[in-house]
Parts: sequence; structure tokens; C-alpha cells
Amino acid sequence: MPDVSIRAGAIPASPIRKLSAVAEAAAQRGVKVYHLNIGQPDIASPEAGLDALHHVDRTVLEYSPSNGFASLRKAWAEYYSSFGATLDADDFIVTAGASEAALFALLCCLDPGDEIIAPEPLYANYTSFAVASGVRLVPVSAYMEDGFRLPSAEQLAALIGPRTRGILICNPNNPTGYVYSGEELQAIGALAREHNLFLFVDEVYREFVYGDTPFLSALTLEGAENNVVVFDSFSKRFSECGIRVGAVVTRNTSLRSAIMRLCQARLSPPLLGQIVAEASLAAPESYGAQVCAEYKERRDCLMERLAGMAGVTSSVPMGAFYTMARLPVDDAERFCAWCLSDFAYEGKTVMLAPGAGFYLTPGMGHDEVRIAYVLKKENLMTALTVLEEALKAYPGRLDQIDERDTKR
Amino acid sequence: MPDVSIRAGAIPASPIRKLSAVAEAAAQRGVKVYHLNIGQPDIASPEAGLDALHHVDRTVLEYSPSNGFASLRKAWAEYYSSFGATLDADDFIVTAGASEAALFALLCCLDPGDEIIAPEPLYANYTSFAVASGVRLVPVSAYMEDGFRLPSAEQLAALIGPRTRGILICNPNNPTGYVYSGEELQAIGALAREHNLFLFVDEVYREFVYGDTPFLSALTLEGAENNVVVFDSFSKRFSECGIRVGAVVTRNTSLRSAIMRLCQARLSPPLLGQIVAEASLAAPESYGAQVCAEYKERRDCLMERLAGMAGVTSSVPMGAFYTMARLPVDDAERFCAWCLSDFAYEGKTVMLAPGAGFYLTPGMGHDEVRIAYVLKKENLMTALTVLEEALKAYPGRLDQIDERDTKR
Repeated sequence: MPDVSIRAGAIPASPIRKLSAVAEAAAQRGVKVYHLNIGQPDIASPEAGLDALHHVDRTVLEYSPSNGFASLRKAWAEYYSSFGATLDADDFIVTAGASEAALFALLCCLDPGDEIIAPEPLYANYTSFAVASGVRLVPVSAYMEDGFRLPSAEQLAALIGPRTRGILICNPNNPTGYVYSGEELQAIGALAREHNLFLFVDEVYREFVYGDTPFLSALTLEGAENNVVVFDSFSKRFSECGIRVGAVVTRNTSLRSAIMRLCQARLSPPLLGQIVAEASLAAPESYGAQVCAEYKERRDCLMERLAGMAGVTSSVPMGAFYTMARLPVDDAERFCAWCLSDFAYEGKTVMLAPGAGFYLTPGMGHDEVRIAYVLKKENLMTALTVLEEALKAYPGRLDQIDERDTKR
Repeated sequence: MPDVSIRAGAIPASPIRKLSAVAEAAAQRGVKVYHLNIGQPDIASPEAGLDALHHVDRTVLEYSPSNGFASLRKAWAEYYSSFGATLDADDFIVTAGASEAALFALLCCLDPGDEIIAPEPLYANYTSFAVASGVRLVPVSAYMEDGFRLPSAEQLAALIGPRTRGILICNPNNPTGYVYSGEELQAIGALAREHNLFLFVDEVYREFVYGDTPFLSALTLEGAENNVVVFDSFSKRFSECGIRVGAVVTRNTSLRSAIMRLCQARLSPPLLGQIVAEASLAAPESYGAQVCAEYKERRDCLMERLAGMAGVTSSVPMGAFYTMARLPVDDAERFCAWCLSDFAYEGKTVMLAPGAGFYLTPGMGHDEVRIAYVLKKENLMTALTVLEEALKAYPGRLDQIDERDTKR
């Protein structure tokens, strides 16, 4: 049997989906599994998008242009003006979600062995795309104690070497919920310019900011027009994760031309998703405001409940819809698996994403989990009650271990 | 400004889409452009698929499983039984078209510097995916004079070196229309087994076979179960190129597991496309038969018209809906560009795909074009009349050059 490639062997299993089989087994035993592991919102997609779908009047479901429909790109560019970024339809290349945007950007910006500096914890799938494209992610650790703020420009600069080609951040951040300040963005923008690096910014959670720090798009950074490469998506904003419509947004024309050749090879982004996306842009402003208010309420609920659990710590997420939480357990992945395989409270259990998968530095995050607050409040409350009970019952709970150690 | 990667610089422009800008300019001048360059059929997609779209009753357009819906994979596996291949739903990983299937298979089967042997002319986008993934395609030339049949097993074997990891064919073939015989498939299957190679087979044109050679899926090759990796798609079969639903089909469980990790990183294939695809499988058998008969008629029309053009040669395509044609011109790409920029016949012109882009060996195909016969007969007839007139009027026509040479 021919072997798979070395790089394929090195692609990690997704921490978000690696326990899926155990979760399915739990569901088959009749246990109700609350999914706090994945950023799939239960909020309704805009009616305008669904309506467009119901009225597709084509007889042939044909290819769209390789860079996506011009009308969609134009409307998308106009939307950015509300964030103070002046963009043209041609600055957008529509992709199959932000995932394709990230993979194609890595392939077109870096060669095997090249490096990107990225604060950790980070969105785990970047690691998979980096491994697949032969790119080395160089981590710089952010800490819960600091609210996961960006490490200093000096710390980042110290990691720049001859193979460094870019810096990668997610803003608002998945998995920490941190929202980068204007000063932090200016600092890495300046660093990128000074060292001639790409500045990759995943802004798919742009709509969801709850605190006092306003969201600032990297596309507003003056002087860094050729450095900034933004990944965008309709998935989170409109609760349309399944339509697979995202974009690479950059004013760097050489890069656009390169990505475009790769996009032509894969022919076109999803037709139906683009139809839904464009129609969704006509959703009333109240849609976004309501969704954001809803997530803020869920966040507050999550924070309140976590604060009431002995031994659990978490920073307050300022945006997106995730938090990293530290649990009083021997090993978070073991705990997550145990919740699915060995535990149920009133016939219910929870699925969480083990934290270690969001770190590149070995040993980091082994007592952390990522919690997504995408379930409606009553379900979230139930799930958190289940989590609280699970933490009490878990045999590897840290204070129990301490107790046992003391008794010996 | 940071530079794009070396590999991105090496991704060729698609011969199918590289003249798009010139074609758009022609259209803007009011010239009607007949697209013989791209495999976008004008045949209606099955009503069952469109109907499913109009009745999507979800309120959240959410992620699907990373390997696609189990119900779709099950139905897809059942369909293969009509081709004599016994498959399980788990043998399928649903992808964003056969394009994602091909790219992910290359990334997961080969490392940078590894080689794949492929008969040329070949589907040009394989080259782009190979460059992006650092894989070297090693060509073995097939010739129009031989009807583009597979070069001998000895010729293929002679190219196998220490880095050879696979053989890649497209059956029925894009761009030649050749359908590989049982003997040819057995021969490369044996070669793949003997040398422990992957056998990648793009079977997206499976439905379209017009001659006496029956189509044989590589998934029926006994003993090569761990070697064979098939790329499949709904695009051509159901005239649904825009839904972006394809699959990697393989019984090699290690490979599936590797591809699955990459698929989890990109989260999920298009939701709406999968809904349309699954519903389309319920299209009546007559749909496929009618579509196939329609393409056969178009092929016959194309062959008859090409035979009537002085200096034009082509082999008879046995399947798919393309042919490679040799034109009496100085340079086929120049001719294709000229048709769009400088020529019109009764306000109409044609867009063709220059042949050189389908070859890896420098100098091959410079007098060839790929012609797709995907337009309805009356449009195809008009387009071929335009082509005939263009060949008469083209200043770089070969016999004219000969004449000029003689006069000097």
C-alpha cells in the first residue's frame, strides 16, 4: 500500500472535531450532547438569504467567475466603508469560506520552510493549513492572566528571522475573544512594514464586539496596504456557516494575481452560497444589532456561571463567541473525552474543545478548554449546569487528586 | 512590498480562462462571444435538484459534516454499483468539486519534490495544483495520430524513478475525449501495484461515452484497492458546475484518514450544493440518457464541421465533451487572442482554449486548441461557422504564410 505523504501525517486532528466519534457514540446511547465545542450558531440566518434561495430562477446551476460575482464583491466593498476602509470590488477574491482564503493565501505568500509568527492560543485550523503548505508557524504565547493581549512588539520582533514572511492574528480572536486595540494593530502594522512581512488578519468575527475596545479593521492601517491580507467570511456574521462563502481581501495586486491563478484552477466559489450571501447583505441593520446583543447576553451568562464554578478561571472575552477556560482537571482532553464517554447528568452531557490543540508550544493549554457560547441562553444554562456537575464528578479533578495525595 | 511565493509565481494562468479579459472586452464592444473554451454545459440541471433548493426548510444554514452528509455518500455509493463497483458510504469524502478533491489528494499523497507520471495533453488545472503542492508532473506524450491512446506500459515504466509516487489519468479524458480500454486500465493498475504507486483517476465525465469502448471505473480494478484514488463530481453529470460538490473516492483507509484531517480543517463542503446533489440523484434515468444523446449529437456535428475545414485535424472524441483540434495557424494562442481582439463575423466571434496549456513538454500543442462541445447544436453550428471564417481571415494562417514565403 502506498504511504500517505509526510506532511499529511503531520496534519493534526482538529481539537474541535477530534472527539466527534465519541460524541456520536454518546448520542447513540441516548445521551443529549450540548455542543460547546464548535462555532456553529443556532441563530437564524437572515430571511432575505433564505428567500433568495427559494426563488433561484436559474435552469442551469453553472460556474460563477473564479473571483466571485462582481455584484457580490461590490456590495461587500461597500459594507467595509462602515468600518472606515475604502475598498474596491477588485480587492476581493471570493473563496469557499475563510478556510480556502487562508489556505490559498499561505500557498501564495510562502514557500515550504518559510515562517509566520502567530500569537497562541490560535485557531487550530491555521496549523493544519500551515502543515499542508509546508509553512512553519512560530508561536508567541499570550496569557490568560493578561487577558490574552498581544505580546509586545519587542517580543514579536525577537522572533523575526531570515525565513519570516508574515504575522498572523485573528481579530476579534478565536479562541480567546480578545479584541486588539488600535495601538496593538498599529504596532504590528509597523513591524510588518519595517520587515517587509505579510500581515494576515482573520476578521470573520468583526461584527461581534461587546466591550469598550472598538473593532478596527487591519484594512484601515495606513501605509500597510501591500502587507495586509484579510480573511473574511459570511459564516459567523449571518449564521451561514454552510454556504461556504468567504474572501481574501487585499490591496496587494501581485498577490491577488497569484491567488487568482490558483482560484482559476479550482474554477469557482460556490454559486448558491454567493446568491444567499449577496441577498443577506440586504438584511436590516437590526439583524446585526440583535445578533450581537444576543451573543453579549450569552457571554455574560457564561461568565457568570463560570465564575461560580470552583477552580475555573477565564478571561472575559471582548468579542467573537468563544472563551478559553482553565479547568481544575488533570488533563483537559481526558476530561472532555470522559464527559462524552463516561458521564451524563440527567441524560445530558457537554462537548468541549480541548485547549492544547490551540497552542503550538508543547505543554501549553493542557488544563484549558475552548468554550463556544453559540447556544441559546436556556440551552447554554443547561450545558453549563452539566459542565459544573461533570467537574464535580470527574475522577481526575485536581483538588481530589490533591486530597488523595494527602491521604497517602 | 512582500513578494509572493516562488510556487505562486510558478502557477500557470489557466489556458481555459487566461483570455477572459480579452473576451470581456469583445463582449463590451458588442461582439457576441461563443464560448467553446470552457466545459460549462447549457443543458438544464435536473428539476429534482432545483426543486430541493426551492424547498430548503432550514432556518440556519449550518455546517455539514466534514466528509459530507452520510445520506449523500450512501446514495453516491449505490450509484457506483451500476458501474460494477461495490463501495461503502465511508469510501467517499465529499469535497468542493473535483478540484478540491485533486488538490487535497496531492497534498496528502505526495511531498514536495515527489513525482506523478501523467499522459499529456492533460487537464491544465492539475498542473496548477501540482505546482501549488510542490509536486512534479512527469509527462508522457499521447498523440492525436494515435487517437490519444495511453502510451505503452513500457513507456510509463521507463519514467518511474525514486521519487515517483503516482500515475494520473482522466477517463473519459479531458481534453482529448479518449476513453481508456479495459486493457489499458489493467496495465496501469498492475504498474501501480507493482511499484506501490497511487493511481489517481479523474472520472467526472463517466456518464458521457459515445463509442464502442465501454467506460470502466478504476474502482473495479481488483487488487488495486489501496492504490486507486478517484476524483468525482456532480458538475458535468448533472450540469451543476456551480454547486461545487465532488468527492475523493478511495478504499485506502490511511489516505482517507489523512484527507479527513485536512477536510476537518476546512470545516465542511458546501451545504446547499449537497442538498441539490442528493436530490438530483433522484432524476429519472431518462435524464442521463437524453443528456448523453444530446452530447453525442453535438460531437457528431462538431466532427462533421471540423472535417470540412481545410487544414484542421482532430481525432474523434469517444467520451467527455472536448476535442483537441490542430489548426493551420502559426500559433494557436495568438489565433485565439486574435479571434477575440481583432475578428468578428456578423458581429460574432469564438473563444477557444489554446492547446499548449494542456501540455507539459515545451513546444507541444502550439498549433492545437481544445474545443468544448457544450453549446446547443444551433449555437455550436454558428460558432463553428465563425471559427471557419476566422481561420480564413487570420493573417497568421499557415498556407498564407507559406504563400508569402514563396513570393519573397
